Amino acid sequence: MCPSSTSIAFIGTGVMGRSMAGHLLRAGHALHVYNRTKEKAADLLAAGAQWHDSAGRAAAAADVVITVVGYPADVEATYLSDHGVVAQARPGSVLIDMTTSSPSLARRIAAAASARGSAALDAPVSGGDIGAKEARLVIMVGGDEAAFARVQPLFALMGKNIIRHGAAGAGQHCKLANQVAIASGMMAWVEALTYARAAGLDPARVLESIGGGAASSWAMVNLGPRALRGDFAPGFYVKHFLKDMRLALESAAELKLDLPGLAAAKKLYDRVAAQGWEDLGTQALYRLYTES
Amino acid sequence: MCPSSTSIAFIGTGVMGRSMAGHLLRAGHALHVYNRTKEKAADLLAAGAQWHDSAGRAAAAADVVITVVGYPADVEATYLSDHGVVAQARPGSVLIDMTTSSPSLARRIAAAASARGSAALDAPVSGGDIGAKEARLVIMVGGDEAAFARVQPLFALMGKNIIRHGAAGAGQHCKLANQVAIASGMMAWVEALTYARAAGLDPARVLESIGGGAASSWAMVNLGPRALRGDFAPGFYVKHFLKDMRLALESAAELKLDLPGLAAAKKLYDRVAAQGWEDLGTQALYRLYTES
Repeated sequence: MCPSSTSIAFIGTGVMGRSMAGHLLRAGHALHVYNRTKEKAADLLAAGAQWHDSAGRAAAAADVVITVVGYPADVEATYLSDHGVVAQARPGSVLIDMTTSSPSLARRIAAAASARGSAALDAPVSGGDIGAKEARLVIMVGGDEAAFARVQPLFALMGKNIIRHGAAGAGQHCKLANQVAIASGMMAWVEALTYARAAGLDPARVLESIGGGAASSWAMVNLGPRALRGDFAPGFYVKHFLKDMRLALESAAELKLDLPGLAAAKKLYDRVAAQGWEDLGTQALYRLYTES
Repeated sequence: MCPSSTSIAFIGTGVMGRSMAGHLLRAGHALHVYNRTKEKAADLLAAGAQWHDSAGRAAAAADVVITVVGYPADVEATYLSDHGVVAQARPGSVLIDMTTSSPSLARRIAAAASARGSAALDAPVSGGDIGAKEARLVIMVGGDEAAFARVQPLFALMGKNIIRHGAAGAGQHCKLANQVAIASGMMAWVEALTYARAAGLDPARVLESIGGGAASSWAMVNLGPRALRGDFAPGFYVKHFLKDMRLALESAAELKLDLPGLAAAKKLYDRVAAQGWEDLGTQALYRLYTES
Protein backbone atom coordinates (compact mmCIF):
# COMPACT_ATOMS: atom_id res chain seq x y z
CA MET A 1 0.00 0.00 0.00
CA CYS A 2 3.03 2.27 0.43
CA PRO A 3 4.82 4.37 -0.77
CA SER A 4 1.64 5.81 -2.28
CA SER A 5 -0.67 7.57 0.16
CA THR A 6 -2.13 5.30 2.82
CA SER A 7 -5.23 5.96 4.85
CA ILE A 8 -4.14 5.72 8.49
CA ALA A 9 -6.13 5.86 11.72
CA PHE A 10 -4.02 7.22 14.56
CA ILE A 11 -5.46 6.63 18.01
CA GLY A 12 -3.75 8.26 20.96
CA THR A 13 -2.23 11.66 20.30
CA GLY A 14 -0.35 12.29 23.52
CA VAL A 15 3.25 13.49 23.63
CA MET A 16 4.57 10.47 21.74
CA GLY A 17 1.63 9.84 19.41
CA ARG A 18 1.35 13.46 18.29
CA SER A 19 4.96 13.54 17.02
CA MET A 20 4.66 10.14 15.38
CA ALA A 21 1.36 10.98 13.65
CA GLY A 22 2.85 14.28 12.48
CA HIS A 23 5.58 12.47 10.55
CA LEU A 24 2.97 10.31 8.78
CA LEU A 25 0.85 13.34 7.91
CA ARG A 26 3.80 15.33 6.57
CA ALA A 27 4.77 12.36 4.38
CA GLY A 28 1.43 12.75 2.60
CA HIS A 29 -0.66 10.04 4.23
CA ALA A 30 -4.36 10.58 4.96
CA LEU A 31 -4.74 10.72 8.74
CA HIS A 32 -7.85 9.85 10.77
CA VAL A 33 -7.44 10.63 14.45
CA TYR A 34 -9.14 9.88 17.72
CA ASN A 35 -7.97 10.76 21.22
CA ARG A 36 -9.68 10.77 24.61
CA THR A 37 -8.90 14.48 24.96
CA LYS A 38 -9.68 16.12 21.63
CA GLU A 39 -7.56 19.21 22.39
CA LYS A 40 -4.41 17.10 22.21
CA ALA A 41 -5.18 16.43 18.53
CA ALA A 42 -5.65 20.11 17.66
CA ASP A 43 -2.29 20.53 15.88
CA LEU A 44 -2.90 17.46 13.75
CA LEU A 45 -6.44 18.55 12.86
CA ALA A 46 -5.16 21.99 11.89
CA ALA A 47 -2.62 20.28 9.65
CA GLY A 48 -5.32 18.34 7.81
CA ALA A 49 -6.07 15.24 9.86
CA GLN A 50 -9.70 14.16 10.11
CA TRP A 51 -11.36 13.78 13.53
CA HIS A 52 -13.53 10.80 14.52
CA ASP A 53 -15.59 10.39 17.67
CA SER A 54 -14.32 6.95 18.59
CA ALA A 55 -11.38 4.64 18.00
CA GLY A 56 -13.66 2.23 16.14
CA ARG A 57 -14.94 4.92 13.75
CA ALA A 58 -11.41 6.12 13.03
CA ALA A 59 -10.37 2.51 12.36
CA ALA A 60 -13.30 1.96 9.99
CA ALA A 61 -12.07 4.85 7.83
CA ALA A 62 -8.52 3.53 7.34
CA ASP A 63 -6.37 0.71 5.98
CA VAL A 64 -3.79 0.94 8.73
CA VAL A 65 -4.61 1.58 12.39
CA ILE A 66 -1.93 2.77 14.81
CA THR A 67 -2.54 3.04 18.56
CA VAL A 68 -0.40 4.69 21.23
CA VAL A 69 -2.49 4.67 24.39
CA GLY A 70 -1.66 4.39 28.10
CA TYR A 71 -2.13 1.15 29.94
CA PRO A 72 -2.90 -2.44 28.89
CA ALA A 73 -6.53 -1.89 30.01
CA ASP A 74 -6.75 0.99 27.51
CA VAL A 75 -5.26 -1.20 24.79
CA GLU A 76 -7.76 -3.96 25.55
CA ALA A 77 -10.74 -1.59 25.49
CA THR A 78 -9.53 0.13 22.32
CA TYR A 79 -9.10 -3.13 20.41
CA LEU A 80 -11.46 -5.68 21.89
CA SER A 81 -14.58 -3.80 23.05
CA ASP A 82 -17.82 -4.27 21.09
CA HIS A 83 -17.34 -1.30 18.80
CA GLY A 84 -13.57 -1.28 19.10
CA VAL A 85 -10.82 -1.36 16.52
CA VAL A 86 -10.89 -5.09 15.78
CA ALA A 87 -14.69 -5.10 15.29
CA GLN A 88 -14.69 -2.00 13.11
CA ALA A 89 -11.50 -2.46 11.10
CA ARG A 90 -11.74 -3.06 7.36
CA PRO A 91 -10.89 -6.60 6.23
CA GLY A 92 -7.28 -6.72 5.07
CA SER A 93 -6.20 -3.84 7.26
CA VAL A 94 -3.13 -3.82 9.50
CA LEU A 95 -3.58 -2.88 13.16
CA ILE A 96 -0.45 -1.73 15.00
CA ASP A 97 -0.32 -1.22 18.75
CA MET A 98 2.72 0.87 19.67
CA THR A 99 1.85 1.13 23.37
CA THR A 100 4.12 -0.74 25.80
CA SER A 101 1.68 -3.45 26.85
CA SER A 102 1.27 -7.10 27.71
CA PRO A 103 2.68 -9.78 25.37
CA SER A 104 -0.26 -12.09 26.07
CA LEU A 105 -2.75 -9.31 25.32
CA ALA A 106 -0.90 -8.71 22.04
CA ARG A 107 -1.39 -12.38 21.17
CA ARG A 108 -5.12 -12.19 21.99
CA ILE A 109 -5.55 -9.10 19.82
CA ALA A 110 -3.65 -10.75 16.96
CA ALA A 111 -5.89 -13.83 17.16
CA ALA A 112 -9.06 -11.70 17.24
CA ALA A 113 -7.86 -9.60 14.30
CA SER A 114 -6.91 -12.66 12.31
CA ALA A 115 -10.38 -14.15 12.89
CA ARG A 116 -11.88 -11.05 11.25
CA GLY A 117 -9.49 -10.94 8.31
CA SER A 118 -7.11 -8.23 9.46
CA ALA A 119 -3.59 -8.52 10.90
CA ALA A 120 -2.37 -7.07 14.20
CA LEU A 121 1.21 -6.18 15.04
CA ASP A 122 2.63 -5.20 18.41
CA ALA A 123 5.30 -2.54 17.90
CA PRO A 124 6.29 -0.75 21.11
CA VAL A 125 9.05 1.82 20.92
CA SER A 126 11.91 3.25 22.88
CA GLY A 127 13.56 6.61 22.47
CA GLY A 128 11.11 8.81 24.38
CA ASP A 129 9.58 12.11 23.32
CA ILE A 130 12.80 13.29 21.68
CA GLY A 131 13.13 10.07 19.67
CA ALA A 132 9.50 10.45 18.58
CA LYS A 133 10.04 14.10 17.58
CA GLU A 134 13.21 13.35 15.65
CA ALA A 135 11.78 10.20 14.00
CA ARG A 136 14.55 8.02 15.38
CA LEU A 137 12.62 5.69 17.63
CA VAL A 138 13.64 2.10 18.19
CA ILE A 139 10.63 0.02 17.04
CA MET A 140 10.38 -3.56 18.30
CA VAL A 141 7.86 -5.58 16.32
CA GLY A 142 5.96 -8.81 16.79
CA GLY A 143 3.40 -10.40 14.48
CA ASP A 144 2.76 -11.54 10.94
CA GLU A 145 5.77 -11.14 8.66
CA ALA A 146 3.82 -10.09 5.55
CA ALA A 147 1.89 -7.44 7.50
CA PHE A 148 5.21 -6.17 8.89
CA ALA A 149 6.62 -5.89 5.36
CA ARG A 150 3.55 -3.93 4.22
CA VAL A 151 3.81 -1.27 6.91
CA GLN A 152 7.62 -1.10 7.10
CA PRO A 153 7.63 2.18 5.09
CA LEU A 154 5.36 3.73 7.73
CA PHE A 155 7.63 2.56 10.55
CA ALA A 156 10.55 4.09 8.67
CA LEU A 157 8.85 7.50 8.91
CA MET A 158 8.82 7.24 12.72
CA GLY A 159 11.96 5.29 13.64
CA LYS A 160 15.48 4.30 12.70
CA ASN A 161 16.06 0.91 14.33
CA ILE A 162 13.18 -1.33 13.27
CA ILE A 163 13.39 -5.05 13.99
CA ARG A 164 10.75 -7.79 13.91
CA HIS A 165 11.48 -10.18 16.75
CA GLY A 166 8.96 -12.91 15.96
CA ALA A 167 5.27 -13.73 16.16
CA ALA A 168 2.59 -11.67 17.95
CA GLY A 169 3.82 -10.60 21.39
CA ALA A 170 7.52 -10.65 20.44
CA GLY A 171 7.65 -6.86 20.12
CA GLN A 172 6.25 -6.50 23.63
CA HIS A 173 8.66 -9.11 24.95
CA CYS A 174 11.59 -7.18 23.47
CA LYS A 175 10.38 -3.90 24.96
CA LEU A 176 9.96 -5.58 28.35
CA ALA A 177 13.52 -6.93 28.07
CA ASN A 178 14.56 -3.30 27.54
CA GLN A 179 12.67 -2.26 30.69
CA VAL A 180 14.18 -5.15 32.66
CA ALA A 181 17.64 -3.82 31.77
CA ILE A 182 16.64 -0.29 32.76
CA ALA A 183 15.32 -1.49 36.14
CA SER A 184 18.58 -2.84 37.59
CA GLY A 185 20.46 -0.22 35.59
CA MET A 186 18.76 2.51 37.63
CA MET A 187 19.85 0.88 40.90
CA ALA A 188 23.38 0.69 39.47
CA TRP A 189 24.13 4.40 39.10
CA VAL A 190 21.85 5.50 41.94
CA GLU A 191 23.58 3.20 44.44
CA ALA A 192 27.02 4.21 43.14
CA LEU A 193 26.33 7.93 43.58
CA THR A 194 24.55 7.38 46.90
CA TYR A 195 27.56 5.45 48.18
CA ALA A 196 29.98 8.14 46.93
CA ARG A 197 27.96 10.88 48.60
CA ALA A 198 27.71 9.00 51.90
CA ALA A 199 31.49 8.43 51.79
CA GLY A 200 32.00 12.20 51.61
CA LEU A 201 32.98 12.36 47.94
CA ASP A 202 31.60 14.84 45.41
CA PRO A 203 29.27 12.64 43.33
CA ALA A 204 29.67 14.90 40.28
CA ARG A 205 33.44 14.35 40.34
CA VAL A 206 32.86 10.63 40.85
CA LEU A 207 30.74 10.66 37.67
CA GLU A 208 33.77 12.13 35.87
CA SER A 209 35.83 9.13 37.00
CA ILE A 210 33.28 6.35 36.45
CA GLY A 211 31.06 7.70 33.66
CA GLY A 212 33.31 6.64 30.80
CA GLY A 213 34.37 3.12 31.72
CA ALA A 214 33.09 -0.35 32.51
CA ALA A 215 30.51 0.98 34.99
CA SER A 216 28.97 3.48 32.60
CA SER A 217 25.51 3.38 31.12
CA TRP A 218 23.16 5.63 29.18
CA ALA A 219 21.17 6.18 32.38
CA MET A 220 24.24 7.06 34.48
CA VAL A 221 25.46 9.61 31.96
CA ASN A 222 22.05 11.12 31.12
CA LEU A 223 20.09 10.86 34.36
CA GLY A 224 22.93 11.02 36.91
CA PRO A 225 23.72 14.71 36.38
CA ARG A 226 20.00 15.60 36.48
CA ALA A 227 19.53 13.80 39.79
CA LEU A 228 22.64 15.43 41.27
CA ARG A 229 21.35 18.92 40.48
CA GLY A 230 17.96 18.05 41.99
CA ASP A 231 16.15 17.98 38.64
CA PHE A 232 13.49 15.29 38.93
CA ALA A 233 11.33 16.49 36.01
CA PRO A 234 9.97 13.55 34.07
CA GLY A 235 11.75 12.33 30.97
CA PHE A 236 10.14 8.99 31.76
CA TYR A 237 7.44 8.97 34.47
CA VAL A 238 7.81 6.80 37.58
CA LYS A 239 4.18 5.69 37.15
CA HIS A 240 4.79 4.46 33.60
CA PHE A 241 7.99 2.69 34.58
CA LEU A 242 6.10 0.95 37.38
CA LYS A 243 3.51 -0.23 34.87
CA ASP A 244 6.27 -1.66 32.68
CA MET A 245 7.99 -3.42 35.60
CA ARG A 246 4.63 -4.90 36.63
CA LEU A 247 4.15 -6.23 33.08
CA ALA A 248 7.68 -7.65 33.02
CA LEU A 249 7.24 -9.36 36.39
CA GLU A 250 3.91 -10.86 35.29
CA SER A 251 5.42 -12.06 32.06
CA ALA A 252 8.50 -13.45 33.86
CA ALA A 253 6.22 -15.33 36.25
CA GLU A 254 4.39 -16.88 33.27
CA LEU A 255 7.80 -17.97 31.97
CA LYS A 256 8.70 -19.33 35.46
CA LEU A 257 11.66 -16.98 35.55
CA ASP A 258 13.22 -15.51 38.69
CA LEU A 259 14.65 -12.02 38.11
CA PRO A 260 15.95 -10.78 41.49
CA GLY A 261 17.32 -7.51 40.12
CA LEU A 262 13.97 -6.60 38.60
CA ALA A 263 12.17 -7.61 41.78
CA ALA A 264 14.46 -5.42 43.91
CA ALA A 265 14.02 -2.43 41.57
CA LYS A 266 10.25 -2.83 41.55
CA LYS A 267 10.16 -2.76 45.37
CA LEU A 268 12.24 0.41 45.41
CA TYR A 269 10.00 2.14 42.87
CA ASP A 270 6.94 1.13 44.89
CA ARG A 271 8.56 3.12 47.69
CA VAL A 272 9.22 6.02 45.31
CA ALA A 273 5.51 6.00 44.39
CA ALA A 274 4.55 5.76 48.07
CA GLN A 275 6.42 9.04 48.61
CA GLY A 276 3.97 10.63 46.16
CA TRP A 277 6.57 10.88 43.41
CA GLU A 278 4.70 8.95 40.69
CA ASP A 279 4.73 11.97 38.38
CA LEU A 280 8.45 12.61 38.73
CA GLY A 281 11.03 11.17 36.35
CA THR A 282 12.61 7.80 37.05
CA GLN A 283 15.76 9.52 38.40
CA ALA A 284 13.66 10.21 41.53
CA LEU A 285 15.10 6.90 42.72
CA TYR A 286 18.17 8.91 43.74
CA ARG A 287 15.93 11.05 45.89
CA LEU A 288 14.58 7.95 47.63
CA TYR A 289 18.08 6.73 48.47
CA THR A 290 19.34 10.10 49.66
CA GLU A 291 16.31 11.68 51.30
CA SER A 292 14.38 8.86 52.89
CA MET B 1 60.98 15.13 41.59
CA CYS B 2 59.52 14.83 38.10
CA PRO B 3 59.99 15.25 35.15
CA SER B 4 63.62 14.30 35.79
CA SER B 5 64.26 10.61 36.46
CA THR B 6 62.65 9.32 39.62
CA SER B 7 63.66 6.23 41.52
CA ILE B 8 60.51 4.09 41.74
CA ALA B 9 59.85 0.84 43.58
CA PHE B 10 57.15 -1.18 41.81
CA ILE B 11 55.68 -3.99 43.87
CA GLY B 12 53.32 -6.42 42.18
CA THR B 13 54.09 -7.17 38.55
CA GLY B 14 51.04 -9.17 37.55
CA VAL B 15 49.08 -8.49 34.35
CA MET B 16 48.20 -4.93 35.35
CA GLY B 17 51.38 -4.00 37.24
CA ARG B 18 53.70 -5.24 34.52
CA SER B 19 52.17 -2.95 31.88
CA MET B 20 52.06 0.01 34.25
CA ALA B 21 55.67 -0.45 35.38
CA GLY B 22 56.76 -0.80 31.75
CA HIS B 23 55.46 2.70 30.96
CA LEU B 24 57.45 4.15 33.86
CA LEU B 25 60.61 2.32 32.81
CA ARG B 26 60.31 3.40 29.17
CA ALA B 27 59.88 7.01 30.30
CA GLY B 28 63.38 6.83 31.78
CA HIS B 29 62.64 6.27 35.46
CA ALA B 30 64.83 3.98 37.57
CA LEU B 31 62.73 0.95 38.50
CA HIS B 32 63.15 -1.31 41.54
CA VAL B 33 60.85 -4.29 41.46
CA TYR B 34 59.57 -6.98 43.76
CA ASN B 35 56.92 -9.60 43.08
CA ARG B 36 55.92 -12.80 44.88
CA THR B 37 56.65 -14.78 41.71
CA LYS B 38 59.94 -13.49 40.30
CA GLU B 39 59.28 -14.91 36.79
CA LYS B 40 56.48 -12.40 36.30
CA ALA B 41 59.05 -9.59 36.53
CA ALA B 42 61.38 -11.14 33.94
CA ASP B 43 60.48 -8.74 31.13
CA LEU B 44 61.01 -5.72 33.36
CA LEU B 45 64.35 -7.03 34.65
CA ALA B 46 65.49 -7.69 31.08
CA ALA B 47 64.55 -4.09 30.25
CA GLY B 48 66.75 -2.71 33.04
CA ALA B 49 64.70 -2.85 36.25
CA GLN B 50 66.52 -3.88 39.41
CA TRP B 51 65.28 -6.87 41.44
CA HIS B 52 64.88 -6.82 45.24
CA ASP B 53 64.07 -9.75 47.53
CA SER B 54 61.27 -8.07 49.42
CA ALA B 55 58.81 -5.23 49.14
CA GLY B 56 60.55 -3.43 52.00
CA ARG B 57 63.98 -3.62 50.33
CA ALA B 58 62.58 -2.34 47.04
CA ALA B 59 60.89 0.51 48.91
CA ALA B 60 64.12 1.42 50.71
CA ALA B 61 65.82 1.94 47.34
CA ALA B 62 63.28 4.41 45.93
CA ASP B 63 61.61 7.80 46.37
CA VAL B 64 58.23 6.65 45.11
CA VAL B 65 56.70 3.26 45.89
CA ILE B 66 53.85 1.85 43.80
CA THR B 67 51.98 -1.31 44.76
CA VAL B 68 49.52 -3.36 42.73
CA VAL B 69 48.88 -6.51 44.72
CA GLY B 70 45.85 -8.79 45.12
CA TYR B 71 43.70 -8.58 48.21
CA PRO B 72 43.48 -6.17 51.15
CA ALA B 73 45.37 -8.71 53.29
CA ASP B 74 48.25 -8.50 50.79
CA VAL B 75 48.12 -4.70 50.91
CA GLU B 76 48.20 -4.74 54.71
CA ALA B 77 51.15 -7.15 54.85
CA THR B 78 53.05 -5.26 52.14
CA TYR B 79 52.70 -1.91 53.89
CA LEU B 80 52.31 -2.55 57.60
CA SER B 81 54.38 -5.65 58.44
CA ASP B 82 57.56 -5.21 60.47
CA HIS B 83 59.89 -4.92 57.49
CA GLY B 84 57.20 -3.69 55.14
CA VAL B 85 56.99 -0.65 52.90
CA VAL B 86 56.05 1.90 55.56
CA ALA B 87 58.84 0.78 57.89
CA GLN B 88 61.48 0.73 55.15
CA ALA B 89 60.46 3.72 53.03
CA ARG B 90 62.79 6.71 52.87
CA PRO B 91 61.54 9.80 54.72
CA GLY B 92 59.85 12.14 52.27
CA SER B 93 58.88 9.38 49.88
CA VAL B 94 55.41 8.93 48.35
CA LEU B 95 53.76 5.50 48.70
CA ILE B 96 50.98 4.74 46.22
CA ASP B 97 48.71 1.73 46.52
CA MET B 98 46.93 1.11 43.21
CA THR B 99 45.26 -2.13 44.34
CA THR B 100 41.47 -2.04 44.76
CA SER B 101 41.33 -2.30 48.53
CA SER B 102 39.63 -1.13 51.68
CA PRO B 103 39.12 2.62 52.29
CA SER B 104 39.69 2.21 56.02
CA LEU B 105 42.93 0.28 55.41
CA ALA B 106 44.03 3.12 53.11
CA ARG B 107 43.47 5.56 55.96
CA ARG B 108 45.46 3.39 58.39
CA ILE B 109 48.36 3.17 55.92
CA ALA B 110 48.28 6.93 55.34
CA ALA B 111 48.41 7.57 59.09
CA ALA B 112 51.29 5.12 59.56
CA ALA B 113 53.20 6.63 56.64
CA SER B 114 52.63 10.14 57.89
CA ALA B 115 53.96 9.16 61.33
CA ARG B 116 57.22 8.10 59.66
CA GLY B 117 57.58 11.15 57.45
CA SER B 118 56.32 9.77 54.17
CA ALA B 119 52.97 10.25 52.41
CA ALA B 120 50.64 7.49 51.24
CA LEU B 121 48.08 7.79 48.44
CA ASP B 122 45.37 5.30 47.50
CA ALA B 123 44.99 5.27 43.72
CA PRO B 124 43.01 2.30 42.43
CA VAL B 125 42.33 2.11 38.72
CA SER B 126 39.74 0.99 36.23
CA GLY B 127 40.26 0.12 32.58
CA GLY B 128 41.54 -3.44 32.91
CA ASP B 129 44.54 -5.06 31.25
CA ILE B 130 43.93 -3.22 27.98
CA GLY B 131 43.71 0.16 29.73
CA ALA B 132 46.96 -0.66 31.55
CA LYS B 133 48.68 -1.69 28.32
CA GLU B 134 47.51 1.40 26.43
CA ALA B 135 48.25 3.77 29.35
CA ARG B 136 44.68 5.01 29.45
CA LEU B 137 43.60 3.86 32.90
CA VAL B 138 41.14 5.79 35.01
CA ILE B 139 43.04 6.60 38.23
CA MET B 140 40.99 7.52 41.31
CA VAL B 141 43.12 9.10 44.00
CA GLY B 142 42.79 9.77 47.71
CA GLY B 143 45.33 11.35 50.04
CA ASP B 144 47.56 14.33 50.59
CA GLU B 145 47.19 17.00 47.90
CA ALA B 146 50.88 17.96 47.74
CA ALA B 147 51.94 14.32 47.41
CA PHE B 148 49.36 13.91 44.63
CA ALA B 149 50.80 16.92 42.79
CA ARG B 150 54.33 15.51 43.09
CA VAL B 151 53.47 12.17 41.49
CA GLN B 152 50.92 13.42 38.97
CA PRO B 153 53.50 13.14 36.11
CA LEU B 154 53.92 9.45 36.97
CA PHE B 155 50.15 8.87 36.96
CA ALA B 156 50.04 10.58 33.57
CA LEU B 157 52.37 7.89 32.18
CA MET B 158 49.85 5.20 33.16
CA GLY B 159 46.43 6.78 32.81
CA LYS B 160 44.30 9.40 31.08
CA ASN B 161 41.54 10.25 33.54
CA ILE B 162 43.23 11.13 36.84
CA ILE B 163 41.15 12.69 39.61
CA ARG B 164 41.88 13.22 43.29
CA HIS B 165 38.63 12.68 45.18
CA GLY B 166 39.72 13.78 48.65
CA ALA B 167 41.70 12.62 51.66
CA ALA B 168 43.14 9.14 52.22
CA GLY B 169 40.56 6.47 51.36
CA ALA B 170 38.71 8.64 48.82
CA GLY B 171 40.32 6.89 45.86
CA GLN B 172 39.17 3.54 47.21
CA HIS B 173 35.69 4.92 47.86
CA CYS B 174 35.46 6.11 44.26
CA LYS B 175 36.62 2.75 42.94
CA LEU B 176 34.07 0.98 45.13
CA ALA B 177 31.36 3.32 43.81
CA ASN B 178 32.43 2.15 40.34
CA GLN B 179 32.09 -1.49 41.41
CA VAL B 180 28.70 -0.80 43.01
CA ALA B 181 27.49 0.49 39.62
CA ILE B 182 28.92 -2.55 37.86
CA ALA B 183 27.16 -4.92 40.28
CA SER B 184 23.55 -4.00 39.49
CA GLY B 185 24.61 -3.20 35.94
CA MET B 186 25.50 -6.86 35.43
CA MET B 187 22.06 -7.97 36.62
CA ALA B 188 20.56 -5.42 34.20
CA TRP B 189 21.74 -6.86 30.90
CA VAL B 190 21.87 -10.47 32.13
CA GLU B 191 18.23 -10.39 33.24
CA ALA B 192 17.16 -8.63 30.03
CA LEU B 193 18.80 -11.25 27.80
CA THR B 194 17.65 -14.11 30.03
CA TYR B 195 14.08 -12.83 29.79
CA ALA B 196 14.33 -12.41 26.01
CA ARG B 197 15.66 -15.94 25.59
CA ALA B 198 12.99 -17.46 27.83
CA ALA B 199 10.33 -15.60 25.81
CA GLY B 200 11.57 -17.29 22.65
CA LEU B 201 13.34 -14.28 21.16
CA ASP B 202 16.84 -14.29 19.68
CA PRO B 203 18.85 -12.46 22.37
CA ALA B 204 21.43 -11.28 19.81
CA ARG B 205 18.67 -9.54 17.83
CA VAL B 206 17.27 -8.12 21.07
CA LEU B 207 20.71 -6.61 21.75
CA GLU B 208 20.43 -4.89 18.35
CA SER B 209 17.18 -3.28 19.50
CA ILE B 210 18.12 -2.37 23.07
CA GLY B 211 21.92 -1.92 22.91
CA GLY B 212 21.83 1.67 21.68
CA GLY B 213 19.16 3.31 23.81
CA ALA B 214 18.16 4.12 27.36
CA ALA B 215 18.79 0.53 28.53
CA SER B 216 22.32 0.34 27.17
CA SER B 217 25.52 0.13 29.14
CA TRP B 218 29.18 -0.56 28.57
CA ALA B 219 28.68 -4.01 30.08
CA MET B 220 25.65 -4.84 27.90
CA VAL B 221 27.46 -3.87 24.72
CA ASN B 222 30.83 -5.42 25.60
CA LEU B 223 29.98 -8.47 27.69
CA GLY B 224 26.52 -9.32 26.30
CA PRO B 225 27.78 -10.62 22.94
CA ARG B 226 30.54 -12.64 24.67
CA ALA B 227 28.04 -14.30 27.00
CA LEU B 228 25.68 -15.07 24.11
CA ARG B 229 28.39 -16.90 22.18
CA GLY B 230 29.33 -18.87 25.31
CA ASP B 231 32.64 -17.04 25.81
CA PHE B 232 33.17 -16.84 29.57
CA ALA B 233 36.92 -16.19 29.46
CA PRO B 234 37.92 -13.66 32.11
CA GLY B 235 38.23 -9.99 31.24
CA PHE B 236 37.50 -9.41 34.91
CA TYR B 237 37.56 -12.46 37.21
CA VAL B 238 34.48 -13.45 39.21
CA LYS B 239 36.72 -13.94 42.28
CA HIS B 240 38.09 -10.40 42.07
CA PHE B 241 34.65 -8.91 41.54
CA LEU B 242 33.42 -10.80 44.61
CA LYS B 243 36.29 -9.30 46.62
CA ASP B 244 35.29 -5.82 45.46
CA MET B 245 31.60 -6.35 46.28
CA ARG B 246 32.59 -7.61 49.73
CA LEU B 247 34.64 -4.45 50.29
CA ALA B 248 31.79 -2.26 49.09
CA LEU B 249 29.25 -4.01 51.32
CA GLU B 250 31.57 -3.68 54.34
CA SER B 251 32.15 -0.04 53.60
CA ALA B 252 28.42 0.60 53.03
CA ALA B 253 27.68 -1.07 56.38
CA GLU B 254 30.17 1.27 58.09
CA LEU B 255 28.32 4.17 56.44
CA LYS B 256 24.96 2.68 57.59
CA LEU B 257 23.88 2.48 53.98
CA ASP B 258 21.41 -0.04 52.54
CA LEU B 259 22.23 -0.94 48.93
CA PRO B 260 19.69 -3.60 47.88
CA GLY B 261 20.94 -3.82 44.28
CA LEU B 262 24.49 -4.49 45.43
CA ALA B 263 23.26 -7.02 47.99
CA ALA B 264 21.24 -8.90 45.34
CA ALA B 265 24.18 -8.95 42.92
CA LYS B 266 26.56 -10.20 45.63
CA LYS B 267 24.20 -13.10 46.42
CA LEU B 268 24.04 -14.06 42.75
CA TYR B 269 27.82 -13.98 42.37
CA ASP B 270 28.16 -16.13 45.49
CA ARG B 271 26.08 -18.67 43.55
CA VAL B 272 28.31 -18.21 40.49
CA ALA B 273 31.34 -18.97 42.68
CA ALA B 274 29.54 -21.95 44.22
CA GLN B 275 29.25 -23.40 40.71
CA GLY B 276 33.05 -23.42 40.59
CA TRP B 277 33.19 -20.48 38.18
CA GLU B 278 35.40 -18.15 40.24
CA ASP B 279 38.03 -18.07 37.51
CA LEU B 280 35.59 -17.22 34.73
CA GLY B 281 34.82 -13.66 33.65
CA THR B 282 32.02 -11.72 35.30
CA GLN B 283 29.76 -12.43 32.29
CA ALA B 284 29.41 -15.94 33.76
CA LEU B 285 26.40 -14.47 35.56
CA TYR B 286 24.50 -15.09 32.31
CA ARG B 287 25.46 -18.75 32.59
CA LEU B 288 24.03 -18.87 36.12
CA TYR B 289 20.68 -17.46 34.94
CA THR B 290 20.40 -19.68 31.89
CA GLU B 291 21.99 -22.98 32.99
CA SER B 292 21.17 -23.40 36.64
